[in-house]
Amino acid sequence: MFQNYLEQVRAQSPIIHNITNYVTINDVANMLLACGARPIMSDEPSDIQEITAGCEGLNINLGMLNQQKRKSIFLACETAQEFKHAMVLDPVGIGASSFRRKTAEELLDQFAFTAIRGNLSEIKTLYLGEWKNSGVDADRSDVILEENLDQTISMVQRLAKRYQTVVVVSGALDLVCDGSRCFVIQNGRKEMNRITGTGCQLSGLLTAFLAANPKDIFPAAAAAVCAMGLAGEIGWSHMQIQDGNATYRNRIIDAMYHMTGEQLEKGAIYELR
Amino acid sequence: MFQNYLEQVRAQSPIIHNITNYVTINDVANMLLACGARPIMSDEPSDIQEITAGCEGLNINLGMLNQQKRKSIFLACETAQEFKHAMVLDPVGIGASSFRRKTAEELLDQFAFTAIRGNLSEIKTLYLGEWKNSGVDADRSDVILEENLDQTISMVQRLAKRYQTVVVVSGALDLVCDGSRCFVIQNGRKEMNRITGTGCQLSGLLTAFLAANPKDIFPAAAAAVCAMGLAGEIGWSHMQIQDGNATYRNRIIDAMYHMTGEQLEKGAIYELR
Amino acid sequence: MFQNYLEQVRAQSPIIHNITNYVTINDVANMLLACGARPIMSDEPSDIQEITAGCEGLNINLGMLNQQKRKSIFLACETAQEFKHAMVLDPVGIGASSFRRKTAEELLDQFAFTAIRGNLSEIKTLYLGEWKNSGVDADRSDVILEENLDQTISMVQRLAKRYQTVVVVSGALDLVCDGSRCFVIQNGRKEMNRITGTGCQLSGLLTAFLAANPKDIFPAAAAAVCAMGLAGEIGWSHMQIQDGNATYRNRIIDAMYHMTGEQLEKGAIYELR
Repeated sequence: MFQNYLEQVRAQSPIIHNITNYVTINDVANMLLACGARPIMSDEPSDIQEITAGCEGLNINLGMLNQQKRKSIFLACETAQEFKHAMVLDPVGIGASSFRRKTAEELLDQFAFTAIRGNLSEIKTLYLGEWKNSGVDADRSDVILEENLDQTISMVQRLAKRYQTVVVVSGALDLVCDGSRCFVIQNGRKEMNRITGTGCQLSGLLTAFLAANPKDIFPAAAAAVCAMGLAGEIGWSHMQIQDGNATYRNRIIDAMYHMTGEQLEKGAIYELR
Repeated sequence: MFQNYLEQVRAQSPIIHNITNYVTINDVANMLLACGARPIMSDEPSDIQEITAGCEGLNINLGMLNQQKRKSIFLACETAQEFKHAMVLDPVGIGASSFRRKTAEELLDQFAFTAIRGNLSEIKTLYLGEWKNSGVDADRSDVILEENLDQTISMVQRLAKRYQTVVVVSGALDLVCDGSRCFVIQNGRKEMNRITGTGCQLSGLLTAFLAANPKDIFPAAAAAVCAMGLAGEIGWSHMQIQDGNATYRNRIIDAMYHMTGEQLEKGAIYELR
Repeated sequence: MFQNYLEQVRAQSPIIHNITNYVTINDVANMLLACGARPIMSDEPSDIQEITAGCEGLNINLGMLNQQKRKSIFLACETAQEFKHAMVLDPVGIGASSFRRKTAEELLDQFAFTAIRGNLSEIKTLYLGEWKNSGVDADRSDVILEENLDQTISMVQRLAKRYQTVVVVSGALDLVCDGSRCFVIQNGRKEMNRITGTGCQLSGLLTAFLAANPKDIFPAAAAAVCAMGLAGEIGWSHMQIQDGNATYRNRIIDAMYHMTGEQLEKGAIYELR
C-alpha cells in the first residue's frame, strides 16, 4: 500500500510551497528533491498568492516566525485552501513562544489543515493551550513510551477530532492519528534528534505525500512518516566509524533519493490501532 | 584559454557581494570559497553601499525576493555600477511571480549588468515579458535540444543585444551568448538538477570569474559555466553507490576546490558558434 | 582541566539562543547539537524575550545584521543580562560596515558580554574604532605571528580590560585573553578558513561552554577554542584525496560529535602567558 504513495510522489513531482525557517530551509529543499517533489520558497506577501496558486502543496513551518512571515502565511493559507491544496502545519517551538503558539491557534481556527506535525511537546501545547516548555526539542518528560501510549493516542485523537485533521507526532515512536484511528510507527533512529531539521524535513516530505495522494490522506501521511524513519535507518547503515551528525544529515537525504516504493513497503514498521 | 580565467580567480581572490536567497546561501558561499573567491553577504539597506563598495563583484539572485531585499538590490546596483564592478543577475523564479519579474525588468532597464544567468524558462520570461511557468525549475517543455538549438540561440542573442549583456542559459546544453556569438557547452550532468542551488552556485562562480577577468567577459563567462559543469562531472565520478543528492552537493563543491586551470582547460567541452 | 568543561556541556545540554546570520545558521545549529547543547533560533522582537528567558546562553552574531535583528538583539541582551546568562558577541564584518561596527560598540557599552570572539581585523576594529578592512575575513596584514605576538596580546588584553570581558581572537594562532592573562592556542588548521562559518560555529560552541561552566569562564573559553581547533585537526585526518571544503565542513562537525573529554584534554595545545 505504502509503495504506491511514494511512487505517486515520484510520478507527479508536486510543487511544494514552503514557508519555513532559515535554519533548515536548504535541507527541506533537498529532501523534497530527494523524494521526487519540487520545492519553492517564498515568504514575501507581494508574491505569495501567485506562487501558492502555482503549487500543489503548502508547508507552513513556524520556526523563526516573524511578523512578515506571519502575513505571508495567512495569505498563502487562503490561497491554498481555495485551491484545495494539501496543507501542513509544523508548529516548531510553540511551547517556547506565545507569539508562535497564538499564530498556530489562529491558523487552526481559520483554515482546514490536511495535517499537523510536531513533537510531543508541541502537540501537547496545541492540545492544552499553554503547556510550557523551552527550546524546540521535545521536553524530556514528553516521551512516547509503551506505558503512556494509550493515553497519548487518546489525546492526539482528540486534537485530530477538534481540528478535523490528521495529527502526526514524532518521537521514539511516531503516531499518525485521525479522529478515530492511529498508526503507531517504529521506523527511525534516536540519533536523528542530533541533527537539526529532521522534523522540518519530514513536514516537507509529508506535504509532498499528501499533495500526490489526495484521496488517501490518512495512510499517505503514515507512509511519509515511515519513509522518513526508514531513510534514517538506511542512512545510519551507511555510516562509517568517524561519521557524526553532519554526515548523517546527508546520508538520510541520500537514502530518500534512492528509496524505491518496494523498499518502503518492505521496510515500514507500523501497527494500525 | 579557460585555464587562465580560473587561475586569475585564485590569484586575485575577488570579494563578491551576494544578495541572494536563504535556501542556498551557504552553498553559494562555500562554492565561492572553493573557487578561490571571498564571499560576503548583506541585504540590509543600512550597510549595502559601504559593503558593495568594498567588493569587486555583485551577485543579485531574485530567489526569495522581498521588499527589503529589493531596496538593497537597487542600492547595491547603483554602487556597483559606479565602481564598474562585475554585476550578475540571476532571475530565479520570475516565471512564477510577477513581483520578481517586474523587479528583474526594472533592474535590467536601469543598470548595465555584465551577465544574466537563468534556466530556459526564466530567460524566456525575460524575453517575452509574461511567459508563465510555475516553480523555480525550467518548465518541462523548456528544454534545449539539438532540434530547437538554432531557434533558442537566436532568441538568447536577441535578449543579449537588447540589454547589451552576456546571457547564460543553463540546461542539458548550456548557452553563453552575447549579441553575436554563442558558446554551446556540454559539460555537466542531469543529476545536478536534483540538488537545490546548483544554478545559484553557478551565478556566484560566474560573478567571481567576471570580476577577476574584466577584459575577457564573454569567454570568462563560458569558462565559469564549463567549470561548474566539470565540477559536476568530477563530483559524480567520486560518488559511491549509496550517495544521493545531499552528498553530490558536497562533491561538486569539493571538485571545484581541487580544480586546476589545466584540468578546466582539458575538461571543458564547448563549441563557439 | 579542559576535559571537564566539555563533559559539563554534554551533561547539562544548555539551550543556546542564537541570533545569527543566515549563511551559516544551519552549521551553527548542527555544531551545537554535536557538542551536546541544544540550539534555538529566533530574531523576531515579538518572541525574543520569552525565548531568551527560556535559554541558558545567548550567541549574538552580527553577520547579515539588519534593523529588525538589531531590535531583537537589544531585547535579547536585556533579558539575558537580567537572567545572568552567558553572552557572546561575534562582530562579523564590522570592518566592512559602520552599521555593524556602531551596533557592536553600542552593545558593548550597554551590556556585560561574557566573551567577544572575532578574527584579528574585527578585534582591531573594536579596539581602534575605525580600522578599515573589507569583507568578512581577516585582512591579509592582520595575521598573528610569533613576531607580533606580544604586541597583539597586549592590544587584546587592553580591549578585554576596557569591556571587562574575555576576548577570543581566531587566526593561525588563537588567543583567549582576559585583562591580565592570555591563552595562546595552536590547535586548528589553515584550511578551516576555506569553509564558510567555522568562526560562527566556534562562537556557538563558546556560548555553550560558557553556559555550562559559569564559574570557570576564562579557561572554559580556552577549552572551547581548543575543541574547535581539535575538531578541525581530527576532521582533516579523515579527509580523502578528493574531499574539499564542503566535505571538510561536515567532518569538523562530525569530529565534535564524537569528541570525548579525554580526547580534548590530550589534544589541546596551548600555553598560558
